Amino acid sequence: MAKKKNAFYAQSGGVTAVINASACGVIETARKHKDKIGKVYAGRNGIIGALTEDLIDTSKESAKAIAALRHTPSGAFGSCRFKLKSLEANKAEYERLIEVFKAHNIGYFFYNGGGDSADTCYKVSQLSESLGYPVQAIHVPKTVDNDLPITDNCPGFGSVAKYIAVSTLEATFDVRSMCATSTKVFVLEVMGRHAGWIAAAGAMASTKDQELPIIVLFPEVLFDKDKFLAKVDGLVKKFGYCTVVVSEGCHWPDGKFLAEQGTRDAFGHAQLGGAAPVVANMIKEALGHKFHWGVADYLQRAARHIASKSDVDQAYAMGKAAVEFALKGHNSVMPTIDRVSSSPYKWKVGMAPLSKVANVEKMMPKNFITKDGFGITDKCREYLAPLMKGEDYPPYKNGMPQYVTLKNVAVEKKLKTSFELKK
Amino acid sequence: MAKKKNAFYAQSGGVTAVINASACGVIETARKHKDKIGKVYAGRNGIIGALTEDLIDTSKESAKAIAALRHTPSGAFGSCRFKLKSLEANKAEYERLIEVFKAHNIGYFFYNGGGDSADTCYKVSQLSESLGYPVQAIHVPKTVDNDLPITDNCPGFGSVAKYIAVSTLEATFDVRSMCATSTKVFVLEVMGRHAGWIAAAGAMASTKDQELPIIVLFPEVLFDKDKFLAKVDGLVKKFGYCTVVVSEGCHWPDGKFLAEQGTRDAFGHAQLGGAAPVVANMIKEALGHKFHWGVADYLQRAARHIASKSDVDQAYAMGKAAVEFALKGHNSVMPTIDRVSSSPYKWKVGMAPLSKVANVEKMMPKNFITKDGFGITDKCREYLAPLMKGEDYPPYKNGMPQYVTLKNVAVEKKLKTSFELKK
Repeated sequence: MAKKKNAFYAQSGGVTAVINASACGVIETARKHKDKIGKVYAGRNGIIGALTEDLIDTSKESAKAIAALRHTPSGAFGSCRFKLKSLEANKAEYERLIEVFKAHNIGYFFYNGGGDSADTCYKVSQLSESLGYPVQAIHVPKTVDNDLPITDNCPGFGSVAKYIAVSTLEATFDVRSMCATSTKVFVLEVMGRHAGWIAAAGAMASTKDQELPIIVLFPEVLFDKDKFLAKVDGLVKKFGYCTVVVSEGCHWPDGKFLAEQGTRDAFGHAQLGGAAPVVANMIKEALGHKFHWGVADYLQRAARHIASKSDVDQAYAMGKAAVEFALKGHNSVMPTIDRVSSSPYKWKVGMAPLSKVANVEKMMPKNFITKDGFGITDKCREYLAPLMKGEDYPPYKNGMPQYVTLKNVAVEKKLKTSFELKK
Repeated sequence: MAKKKNAFYAQSGGVTAVINASACGVIETARKHKDKIGKVYAGRNGIIGALTEDLIDTSKESAKAIAALRHTPSGAFGSCRFKLKSLEANKAEYERLIEVFKAHNIGYFFYNGGGDSADTCYKVSQLSESLGYPVQAIHVPKTVDNDLPITDNCPGFGSVAKYIAVSTLEATFDVRSMCATSTKVFVLEVMGRHAGWIAAAGAMASTKDQELPIIVLFPEVLFDKDKFLAKVDGLVKKFGYCTVVVSEGCHWPDGKFLAEQGTRDAFGHAQLGGAAPVVANMIKEALGHKFHWGVADYLQRAARHIASKSDVDQAYAMGKAAVEFALKGHNSVMPTIDRVSSSPYKWKVGMAPLSKVANVEKMMPKNFITKDGFGITDKCREYLAPLMKGEDYPPYKNGMPQYVTLKNVAVEKKLKTSFELKK
C-alpha cells in the first residue's frame, strides 16, 4: 500500500460567518481517517499559501480548538482574492503547485470558496491529466452571494440572510416608534453586486401575521426613481413610515450603480458613499421625510452571533462530505445541498461535477420578485425561510463570544526556491 | 379612602433594545397592585399622547403580550421627540395635561426617557405645587447615550455596547482574514454625538488574551489627522490590518464633524455621508489601503437579538422600582442603578431627585481614554464589562425573533376639546 497522502485545505474569496465550520468539517473528518489521510495542511491566505509554500500544520491544533472553528466566523487560516490563470497563460503557477504538493506529499486538495474559487479548484483537479501529478481536488462551496449553480443554496448565505432579516425587523420597529415626530424612513444597504439574494432576505421581516412596510431594491430590477418615490410615499401615507433595503448592486437603466451618483468631496475627489445615503437623500429631497440610514457591510457576513443553524450544519456537512468524497476516490467534484422538501425542511448531500460549477452564476429566479419589483413572492419566502431556520449561538464569556484564534504553526519549508506571485 | 388613581406611562426620545423591558416592569408591577393603581394608560407617541388625549389602554393586553415586551425592542407605544416648554413659556401645555389627567383620573406619571425627558418629567412633578394638581411623577431612565447623571449607567446602553463590541470583533476577524491580498482597514461608524461611551465599547473587542488592532475615534478627543494616520500606518505594519471605530460625534479642532467634510453630490447638494466613508477615504488617499466601511445606525440601538442580560434585567428593574416608589408616595424622583462592585458585578436600585437629574449630562471620565486618545483604559474596561454581561435571547419561530406588536386599543376620549401641538 502506498504511503498515505496529506491533504491541503484553503479558504478563498470573501469570508463568511460559517466558512470555518466547513474547515472544522474537513479537519475533524480527516482526523477520523488517519489510516488514509495524513496531515491536513492549510494554506496561509488561501492558494497563496500553496504557491509560496506557506503551509499551516493543523495537526498542531487541539481537538478543542478545531471544534471551536464551528462557532468562529471569518477565515481562520486567512483567505485571499487570487485566481489562478489558465494553464496556458501561467504554467509556472501550476508547476509550482505540483512542486509544493510533491514536497509535502499532498494528494488531496480541498478548496473552500465561491465561483472563482471553483474555477481554480477545477483547474487543480485537471493536474493529473494535464501535468501528470495525481491529486484529488474537491471544492467546498461557500459564498454569501448564494450564486453557485446546482446546489440549492451556498453555506454562508443562510446566516447573512438571517442577519439581514433580523436587522431589518429590528430597525423597522425602531422607525415605527419614532415616525410620529421624527424619522419616517430607514434605509439599509446590503451586499450583493450581481444578485439580490441578500436584499431579498430583508423582506422576510414582514410576514402575513405582521405586515411591515418594507421596500427592496434589487440589482435585478432597473432603478426607476419616480416609481420608487411613489412607492415610498404610498407606504408612508398608509403606515406612517417605511424601511428600504437597498442592494449595493442596485443600478440605473444605464448600468450606473446608485452609489456612483457622482458624489464628490470638497476637493473634487470621487464619491465616498454607498447606495444608502443616496437613496435616503433622494427621499428627503422629493418627499421631505426625515431619514436614517445604515450600511451593514462586513457586519452582515461576519455575524456569527446570529448565524442560522441550518447554515452552520450545512457548512460543516459540506466539509465532511468533501473528505468523504475524496476517500471514495472522487476528483473534480463539489458536494451540494439538495433540497428534498421545504416544509418540513429536509435536505441531503449531493455531488456536482466541477466542470458544471466553475464560472456559472446562479441568479435569482424571476418569479421570486414581485411584479412591482419591490418585494418577494411566496415562492421566494418558501425558499428562504428554511435557510434562516434555527439558532446556533457561540459560547460567551464575560459578555463576549469566545471565537478562537488558532496557533497557525507553519510547516517547515522543504523547497529552496521561493515563488513570486503575479497579479 | 380616595378612589384609586390610574397611571400614565410614556416612552420618549430615541428608543432602545430594552425600553419595552422597562414598560414591562411598570405594567406588570402595577398589575400586582390593583388595589392601589387602577389602569395603566400609555401615551401614544409619548407625551404627545397625553396632550392630544390619545391614550392606550394597556389593560386590554394579555399577560402574555405584556411579558413579551421584555424581549421586544423599540417603543411599543410609540415614542416622540417633544420637549415641554417651561411653565412660563407655554402654560397651556401644562393646563392641558392637567385637563387630560383629571378626565382620566390619572395620579401617577411614569416617563421613560433620557436627559430631555427627565426635564419634562421634572416639570410635571411640580404640577401639584405650581398648578395645584396632585400627581406623582417618576422618571424611568433610558438612553443608549449613557449620559444621565447619578445612575451608574442607563438602561439601553449595555445592549448597544454589547452589539458594538461583538460587531467590532466579528468585522475585525473578517478584515484579518482578507488583509493579505485585499481589505486592510475596516471602519465602523457608531452613535454618540456628544459622548464616546458607545465608541468605547468597540475597543472591548480586543482583550489581553487576544489583542486586536482597534482604533477608537472619540467625540471627546479633537481629531488630529496626522496622528491618526500614523497610528493606522503603525498598526497595519504590525498586524497587517486594523479596525477603526468612529463616533458620529468625532470632530475637528474647529468643531466641525468629520461627517461634514463638505461632501457634495453631482448637483452641489450638501453631504450625504457619515464619518465612516470620510475616514476610510482619508486612509486610502494617504496610505493606499483598500478599505471597507459600515454604519451601524439604528441597527445598534434596536439589536434586541444580542441584548445584554444585565441591561434587560436593569431596564425591567427600573420600571418596577418606579411603580414601587410611587406606591411609597414618592414624587419627582428617578430610580438609579447603583454599582456595589464590578467583579463580581453587584448592583442595587437607588433613588435620585429629579431636580439633580434634569439637564445634567454625564460625560466619559478623562481617565477612561488612553493617553494617545485612541483607546480605552483598564478603568474603562472594568466599568463596561459588567454592563455587557450575559445573554438574554428572544424566543424564535421559523428563524425569526418573536417580537410582539401590541393591540394598542385607544381609551375613549372624554374631552370635547382638541389640542394643537406647538413645535
